[in-house]
Amino acid sequence: MERNMDDMNFNILRLGHIEYFVDDLSRSRDFYVDAVGLFETERDERHVYLRAIEDREHHSMVLTQSGTPGVGAIGFRVSREEDLDQLARKFQARQLPMRWLQPWEKRGQGRTLQVQDPFGFPIEYYATKQPVESLLQQYHLHRHGCPTRLDHVNVLMPDAQAGYEWYTRELGFFCSEYTQSAPPDDHVYGAWLYRKPTTHDLAVMTGPGPTMHHAGFSLMEPMGVIRACDALAAAGYADNIERGPARHGISNALFVYVRDPDGNRFELYTGDYLTVDRDQPPKRWELDNPRRQSLWGPPPPRCWFEESMRVTSLATGEPQPVQAPTTRAIPLYVE
Amino acid sequence: MERNMDDMNFNILRLGHIEYFVDDLSRSRDFYVDAVGLFETERDERHVYLRAIEDREHHSMVLTQSGTPGVGAIGFRVSREEDLDQLARKFQARQLPMRWLQPWEKRGQGRTLQVQDPFGFPIEYYATKQPVESLLQQYHLHRHGCPTRLDHVNVLMPDAQAGYEWYTRELGFFCSEYTQSAPPDDHVYGAWLYRKPTTHDLAVMTGPGPTMHHAGFSLMEPMGVIRACDALAAAGYADNIERGPARHGISNALFVYVRDPDGNRFELYTGDYLTVDRDQPPKRWELDNPRRQSLWGPPPPRCWFEESMRVTSLATGEPQPVQAPTTRAIPLYVE
Amino acid sequence: MERNMDDMNFNILRLGHIEYFVDDLSRSRDFYVDAVGLFETERDERHVYLRAIEDREHHSMVLTQSGTPGVGAIGFRVSREEDLDQLARKFQARQLPMRWLQPWEKRGQGRTLQVQDPFGFPIEYYATKQPVESLLQQYHLHRHGCPTRLDHVNVLMPDAQAGYEWYTRELGFFCSEYTQSAPPDDHVYGAWLYRKPTTHDLAVMTGPGPTMHHAGFSLMEPMGVIRACDALAAAGYADNIERGPARHGISNALFVYVRDPDGNRFELYTGDYLTVDRDQPPKRWELDNPRRQSLWGPPPPRCWFEESMRVTSLATGEPQPVQAPTTRAIPLYVE
Amino acid sequence: MERNMDDMNFNILRLGHIEYFVDDLSRSRDFYVDAVGLFETERDERHVYLRAIEDREHHSMVLTQSGTPGVGAIGFRVSREEDLDQLARKFQARQLPMRWLQPWEKRGQGRTLQVQDPFGFPIEYYATKQPVESLLQQYHLHRHGCPTRLDHVNVLMPDAQAGYEWYTRELGFFCSEYTQSAPPDDHVYGAWLYRKPTTHDLAVMTGPGPTMHHAGFSLMEPMGVIRACDALAAAGYADNIERGPARHGISNALFVYVRDPDGNRFELYTGDYLTVDRDQPPKRWELDNPRRQSLWGPPPPRCWFEESMRVTSLATGEPQPVQAPTTRAIPLYVE
Repeated sequence: MERNMDDMNFNILRLGHIEYFVDDLSRSRDFYVDAVGLFETERDERHVYLRAIEDREHHSMVLTQSGTPGVGAIGFRVSREEDLDQLARKFQARQLPMRWLQPWEKRGQGRTLQVQDPFGFPIEYYATKQPVESLLQQYHLHRHGCPTRLDHVNVLMPDAQAGYEWYTRELGFFCSEYTQSAPPDDHVYGAWLYRKPTTHDLAVMTGPGPTMHHAGFSLMEPMGVIRACDALAAAGYADNIERGPARHGISNALFVYVRDPDGNRFELYTGDYLTVDRDQPPKRWELDNPRRQSLWGPPPPRCWFEESMRVTSLATGEPQPVQAPTTRAIPLYVE
Repeated sequence: MERNMDDMNFNILRLGHIEYFVDDLSRSRDFYVDAVGLFETERDERHVYLRAIEDREHHSMVLTQSGTPGVGAIGFRVSREEDLDQLARKFQARQLPMRWLQPWEKRGQGRTLQVQDPFGFPIEYYATKQPVESLLQQYHLHRHGCPTRLDHVNVLMPDAQAGYEWYTRELGFFCSEYTQSAPPDDHVYGAWLYRKPTTHDLAVMTGPGPTMHHAGFSLMEPMGVIRACDALAAAGYADNIERGPARHGISNALFVYVRDPDGNRFELYTGDYLTVDRDQPPKRWELDNPRRQSLWGPPPPRCWFEESMRVTSLATGEPQPVQAPTTRAIPLYVE
Repeated sequence: MERNMDDMNFNILRLGHIEYFVDDLSRSRDFYVDAVGLFETERDERHVYLRAIEDREHHSMVLTQSGTPGVGAIGFRVSREEDLDQLARKFQARQLPMRWLQPWEKRGQGRTLQVQDPFGFPIEYYATKQPVESLLQQYHLHRHGCPTRLDHVNVLMPDAQAGYEWYTRELGFFCSEYTQSAPPDDHVYGAWLYRKPTTHDLAVMTGPGPTMHHAGFSLMEPMGVIRACDALAAAGYADNIERGPARHGISNALFVYVRDPDGNRFELYTGDYLTVDRDQPPKRWELDNPRRQSLWGPPPPRCWFEESMRVTSLATGEPQPVQAPTTRAIPLYVE
Repeated sequence: MERNMDDMNFNILRLGHIEYFVDDLSRSRDFYVDAVGLFETERDERHVYLRAIEDREHHSMVLTQSGTPGVGAIGFRVSREEDLDQLARKFQARQLPMRWLQPWEKRGQGRTLQVQDPFGFPIEYYATKQPVESLLQQYHLHRHGCPTRLDHVNVLMPDAQAGYEWYTRELGFFCSEYTQSAPPDDHVYGAWLYRKPTTHDLAVMTGPGPTMHHAGFSLMEPMGVIRACDALAAAGYADNIERGPARHGISNALFVYVRDPDGNRFELYTGDYLTVDRDQPPKRWELDNPRRQSLWGPPPPRCWFEESMRVTSLATGEPQPVQAPTTRAIPLYVE
């Protein structure tokens, strides 16, 4: 992986938040708080701001009232305010759409740089959010699967090789594991990319794009996956459990995938590992190795492969048009 | 174990409920419900009726407003109404104090036979309670350690050998494990006695009596013991955790002992086993074997050995006078 | 449920063992011991005798070398030797096939009464087995899901209503939960029947019979289900995991179903409850209620509904012929 | 925290290994492998090289045969070979003892810089170790508490304020939490310092020094703490469990402290959190706040406060002389 160090004078720390569009704010708030176990920091007429128990910032998830489900923004935290300016120069140089938000123009969030990345994803960078109390040791308030933090997003684009190259060469991401076609083709179908040293902050997958497959929340312990299913089912959401519990070969995640009342997808998982030694060679998987998707577990339903969330255009505020993948995106054992 | 079969024409099914005296009903209700994870079925001016998630009866714990902490009653469920009459004949023949309560004279409870057993314990037998919905599959309501059922009581009496003999010979209890002095003395210091096929419904221990050491609630899973401690500490009750987490050798229980706001003691535990083969020889432990008390775990505090709860006299409604043990009651490794 | 008390002068305690036929004794021993976590008590040329950690008897599972997979025997423990004679009288009176085995004619097993029940199942009753040390507190030897005991068998017969009636009326089983068609039909499709006070020792289901669907082993804790899957997958048996993890509505079991190297099926599960109050009305489920099969979880594969194990004829030693069910056996949501 | 950036041209990645002296190599190997659940990579006549399941390097723990228990070396991994040269310049400039080891002079370990830090601790820096296969997905080999990685060391020195300043200002460590005396004194009694983004790689505590209190291994899940105790006790090491299970307020660790057969101490724990946002203000605790030591749990035994491991002098190969603390080191609630 060659890095373009000329203008890599910024430090993206980690994925910071995700914004999901929901039709009925109250229904979705109850779902994410009472059935999933996130915590409400605050709400206003059009938004509910949620956080997980390790969060010391105002929000890691925003529910925004909208007639159409999908993804409003993907937020990354940078180290310092200057990093935002450096990133702005980079996106400007490439003539990518961008926009500044003043501090607190988004509730709880400092100065924010909004961009459309080269693949069409609505990314926002920020250095500061309003601090809040961590709920980690407020054990009497913990419930169900008890999400600890927003860990990663998994996005689809017509050619994940391009996404892999952009994020590693231009934005300083590292790769923990990846899926590739057999030699001599050696084309990247999917890559698990990180800034914080876990298996990923961002996975890029080949598929119809730009769309988002899911956001992933980590849990305190493996039993959290079972507890999450039990609580969802008891609260009337058994049919919202789309896939799992099962364990991915890639990343080692013990997971369950859930659709919210609007069909937006998220993952609850545990079991990944630290990636502190950044020069560790990434782990390679063959696309058609069934152990990649499921170290064990029932076959994924087709909807898990075929459905993903629309993302918003920075220019129009409407969902981005979607392009078909340029290479095969679904493993042979699913077809 | 010889059984007196002449008048054993009744069937005690299991421990059914426990009544604890508390000074501040509202404070205790919040403790047991919000911090421990029991559920309130109902309350009136002087009582709160609680149940655990497997319960299909009105209550397995009653908190009763009283100026003095301690134990009001220990309830056992029998199989049929006729069993109550048979038991009454037995206690009457031995001129032990007894009293009938009409159905629903105790809220949620059918016809009830109250007796003082030969050691002074306030026992009540019932065949029927008001049915309630099980909360077992209401997973979205489960919290903390999530007690599943009232499992057993552990009581002290000056000579546990006598208690062992009464409960096995006269009332049909079986023994799963027991503590004995070395031969040739062979005196029973403690015995774990059951009617339902777990390790016990009733443990009798040598000590100042009649007093009750604790009531034990079983949990859904071993992690419940950790969750219980976390929730208690976060809710401000860290100092109420008296002993554990640790594992007893005897009964294999992974446990924590907790004192309620009035100092009443209860145990939260998992890990015991089924005792369906009733003729299985009971397991013998030496009193001074430290693995008996703690398969592993920190040394128990002296208060755990020295403090226990007063029990109520059927005749006077006042606490029973307490007699010192007639043999050594505390293991050598504690002294 | 009317009981035929005239000749119910015996006491069946619980399911005691299961015999599975396997093609390669060594391969199957390694599977059940190294990948599943059972313990080998002993073996001879044609058998491996296995037990779980709560067992205090010689075996709860026998692997027998045979060219054809399937079930050799289903063993139930009775309380006393006399119970065997009483049972023999009952089966003889009904002219059902039976045979006596002398003590230790089956290794580790006392005098044994072998019968073919009215539905064709090869049942054996015994009162005594060779005692062995419990491995419950040998924690350093525990591995993977760590089965605690053989809990139940689940069998198929053309009309489960008949099986329900025979086992409750003639053999003293109790019913914890059952599946029934809608009124006014009220036909029993499946019934969970117990002698020991858990949800079942024996489930009877409508389907092609006599065949056995599975034997179920209970685990120490819910995480055991995840650990079992992880260990099976790592040991190369990911494709042997047939269904789950998921939770049944009926019995509340958190389960995984596994096929052994010969295709014999077993379940690893936790989460059921005590059924000490035998007069508790059984819980009724509608056949077509999807929450009955899966409180939550992925749809069961068709093979789980369509495949089951042949059972052995006492007379011929060959697999019993199989009859089609006389009523619909597969829920609507599967078809 | 002011950083001396002039010569901070190196990148310490994380704690890499620990070397413990043991009297009987075979006994200690069996203890750490069979009872604790570490894995042996290799051994020679004087050493056993161990690793945990996330490790992709040759060893994270070395057992070295020696007549005296204690700590031989504390290894930190740096990012690149050049970092070693930069660190050498820094230690040389301060005239601290140092020595180079050629690649593989220590088995499995590349070029290594050994130094004595200003407080007397034997530190070694390396950039490369022999790669080995991760055992993370070899679930069929996992046992007991299943340590995932060596996470941190906790060391004592006469004045932890000095250690805090050296490691943060000169070596680039960050502080997650710390213990301080009341204002206006504001003296640091202990500090939890990290390079990898967890709560610590290195904790410095005020006490007799230089000595090491413990090395800490993280576990896969909270139940691992219970499983570790069960396995240790069953294997005959119940008395080696020194403290816990309990939960620290500081770092949120659910822990157990264990003494190996030579008395060397280590911790098995889970429950800490990510510290990716390095500018997050560290969390302050008062020395005499009992919730700092034990969010909940039994009182620590005095030996836990009073005993620690001698560390080796680079110059002499003998244990370093120990100085008494210059300020009070033990909380009031222990005295």
